[in-house]
Amino acid sequence: MQLINQVREQSPLVHHITNYVTVNDCANITLAIGASPIMADALEEAAEITQIASGLVLNMGTLNKRTVASMIESGKMANKIGIPVILDPVGAGASSFRNETAAKLLKEIKVNVLRGNISEIKFLAGLDSETKGVDASENDWTNSTDAQKIAQDLAIRLDCIVAITGKVDFVSDGNRTVAIENGHSMLSQLTGTGCMCSSLIGSYCGAAAEKTFEATVTALVTMGVAGELSFEKAGEVGNGSFRVSLQDAISKMNEEMLTRRALFYEI
Amino acid sequence: MQLINQVREQSPLVHHITNYVTVNDCANITLAIGASPIMADALEEAAEITQIASGLVLNMGTLNKRTVASMIESGKMANKIGIPVILDPVGAGASSFRNETAAKLLKEIKVNVLRGNISEIKFLAGLDSETKGVDASENDWTNSTDAQKIAQDLAIRLDCIVAITGKVDFVSDGNRTVAIENGHSMLSQLTGTGCMCSSLIGSYCGAAAEKTFEATVTALVTMGVAGELSFEKAGEVGNGSFRVSLQDAISKMNEEMLTRRALFYEI
Amino acid sequence: MQLINQVREQSPLVHHITNYVTVNDCANITLAIGASPIMADALEEAAEITQIASGLVLNMGTLNKRTVASMIESGKMANKIGIPVILDPVGAGASSFRNETAAKLLKEIKVNVLRGNISEIKFLAGLDSETKGVDASENDWTNSTDAQKIAQDLAIRLDCIVAITGKVDFVSDGNRTVAIENGHSMLSQLTGTGCMCSSLIGSYCGAAAEKTFEATVTALVTMGVAGELSFEKAGEVGNGSFRVSLQDAISKMNEEMLTRRALFYEI
Repeated sequence: MQLINQVREQSPLVHHITNYVTVNDCANITLAIGASPIMADALEEAAEITQIASGLVLNMGTLNKRTVASMIESGKMANKIGIPVILDPVGAGASSFRNETAAKLLKEIKVNVLRGNISEIKFLAGLDSETKGVDASENDWTNSTDAQKIAQDLAIRLDCIVAITGKVDFVSDGNRTVAIENGHSMLSQLTGTGCMCSSLIGSYCGAAAEKTFEATVTALVTMGVAGELSFEKAGEVGNGSFRVSLQDAISKMNEEMLTRRALFYEI
Repeated sequence: MQLINQVREQSPLVHHITNYVTVNDCANITLAIGASPIMADALEEAAEITQIASGLVLNMGTLNKRTVASMIESGKMANKIGIPVILDPVGAGASSFRNETAAKLLKEIKVNVLRGNISEIKFLAGLDSETKGVDASENDWTNSTDAQKIAQDLAIRLDCIVAITGKVDFVSDGNRTVAIENGHSMLSQLTGTGCMCSSLIGSYCGAAAEKTFEATVTALVTMGVAGELSFEKAGEVGNGSFRVSLQDAISKMNEEMLTRRALFYEI
Repeated sequence: MQLINQVREQSPLVHHITNYVTVNDCANITLAIGASPIMADALEEAAEITQIASGLVLNMGTLNKRTVASMIESGKMANKIGIPVILDPVGAGASSFRNETAAKLLKEIKVNVLRGNISEIKFLAGLDSETKGVDASENDWTNSTDAQKIAQDLAIRLDCIVAITGKVDFVSDGNRTVAIENGHSMLSQLTGTGCMCSSLIGSYCGAAAEKTFEATVTALVTMGVAGELSFEKAGEVGNGSFRVSLQDAISKMNEEMLTRRALFYEI
């Protein structure tokens, strides 16, 4: 949990090629955790921007041909200079274009962390999934042993860290698998909480590229604890206040709070 | 007003092809009312995404050639599979490109609900209008008999529901016309409240495709009552707090509150 | 400081061609100060929209080829009809594409106000700068005499007003130079506060095209005072609440508050 101090001290530049729905939330959450966001998706500059960054987040939320090309150029540059690449395969399973793009990105880029909801990850694992747009289908959660195994198998196959976020989050590098029980269901009533998780992973990994597994776990614990604190403070008031409190909580988060409330275990 | 329960139970997937100014507000308001938003505007996937949706919202806020093509493909798919299409002709009257696009969409797609401000609707009705960018011109409101008649005539001509939102909202299917007096003037000081109305209409219609007139009226009552509650709670504090309260109010809205505060009548 | 009343009375239409990260913040801040925003970036309509506007804000935050062409068309139209053009060279220095675009815009358009952070302005002034993405590098602030001279020299060279925002803001038209000490460091922890400054400048200049220097100074004092008020009210709570309070403060700002708290002097 001390990685949060590293993020705040180093303030890594995190390059995002992301969607226009939640991009403002991603920028603000990146600043709130202490990193520095830059969003740039033009092919003319994508790789050059990646070159000055410490982490790269590729988010498929509002895909289009123009930005897919930029994702690939930036991804290759990130691989070349050795900075972590986080892939958020938003809506994988919902359209052929998204499916093909996810496959292409995973083929042409060495991804370090793949983070999605259960429906997206099941789809990418080649399993039957019942996607419902960009939100996970309840039916795709069967039991946690299942999700744990899916994360682990896919991590081995793709040789990367796989994070499935939901009621319980699972993070696996194929070898170790961790379950995280922090969080609150109200997070699913806000747009962009998944995207923000990916930005947090990008921020933590950007500050600790040599510890991407710990960074990913800490990022998800951070979001989970922030969700709990926000619910305690503003859950009864409504979604708007909950959203404001979430940004408050991330910006005021510290090692002590994380350590005290973290609920995760290796499985 | 019991339609709100239907939205919450069914959680319809509402496909938006919309602008990048208010897209986050639209996604959050769709979640707040209990529906599920998906924003996808690439031609490669637009129709395929529409195919899994229960409603389609087309919003002209930040038009460009690329997304107009997607709107037409998605609109045709929506017509084919019989899900409601909501058109928000943002800025109609302000440029030839917007005027031509609105005309093209209305020609090539069977629109179920057309929602705009008085300037936009007057323009589409072929009347003199004094557009001021994307906001309505005060001079375009003369008196309510006028607006009522414009809504009704255009509804007949386009064979769809026409909703004019403003101080008083008018909803007409050509046969019935309803005036809604809920709302607060402070709503016009936030960007996106018109767009959010269209998202609410898409959410209600997505859950009750066989009752689009009632769905449209209930959606506008929902926004109006939420505006009143937000003003009571946060109006004096300022625009930022009012905006947060608006999202709170929509997320906590229920049938009882709507029924108690609804102010509408057939005319 | 009485210019704020002019903005509120005239409610100038401010055309933005801007980035998708902070566009919603820019629209809401423009409304909060009393102006009317319109965001339109398609080449098919850009110049036509500029023609009905009172001010034009060009923001390079998420550049792409498509919108650069629109910026040039709109800029030329603004020059032709004599409305003020504000250029926000976000990320100048961070990539060749941004550098070339900034140079091109400054060559083909007569810019009235150029507003950036110290790293961006140093780069445009042809000085060594140490850009860190879209945020200013601490090392680029040496001392205020330096920044003052950079603003003044560049203002003379470009024959426009140059505003450098940071701990202290400097505004120069080459002849007069003003330093503004309002503001709070927490503003740098939110995305878009620079962009919002440019929108405020566009709003003030849109209402007072004959006094662009005073308009620019008043805009930056407005943001600075709003930042102080927000910090006093919500700084301890966190970034989310601070952000809400910032919008509150701008919407409730008045001449008396500005006059009482303004901290600026000619140097």
